[in-house]
Amino acid sequence: MKARVHVMLKNGVLDPQGEAVRHALGSLGFDGVESVRQGKVIELELAETDAAKAEESVKAMCEKLLANTVIESYAVELD
Amino acid sequence: MKARVHVMLKNGVLDPQGEAVRHALGSLGFDGVESVRQGKVIELELAETDAAKAEESVKAMCEKLLANTVIESYAVELD
Repeated sequence: MKARVHVMLKNGVLDPQGEAVRHALGSLGFDGVESVRQGKVIELELAETDAAKAEESVKAMCEKLLANTVIESYAVELD
Repeated sequence: MKARVHVMLKNGVLDPQGEAVRHALGSLGFDGVESVRQGKVIELELAETDAAKAEESVKAMCEKLLANTVIESYAVELD
């Protein structure tokens, strides 16, 4: 089954990459962009077919590797 | 209004970052991960309140800055 993980910087953590994008959009003439946050999306194709087990496994992957939980939050979606 | 953009490498384009994640997950003992693709997610807070105009504007941002449409595809979601 497929899993999609979103990893975003937590609120309150400075996001220089997002800030750079916001600034660049302004320079290109896109007004009205109030804030930009940039994160990662990771799509996994898993052999596991049981949704509960897959979710548990993907959460463990996030805790151990995919997200730095000190400054990042993650969300798991299963298809 | 809020917009979320997903930018992923197109199918067929090599994704060394995703491949590195897959390999690292295998090393950590996570079996059964068949493939991994990594992309970007960009969350925008827009002053625009009209959904159609906001979508058009975000698509223009993707074409001009957020995605490299030669190798990347993008998807826009509005909240």
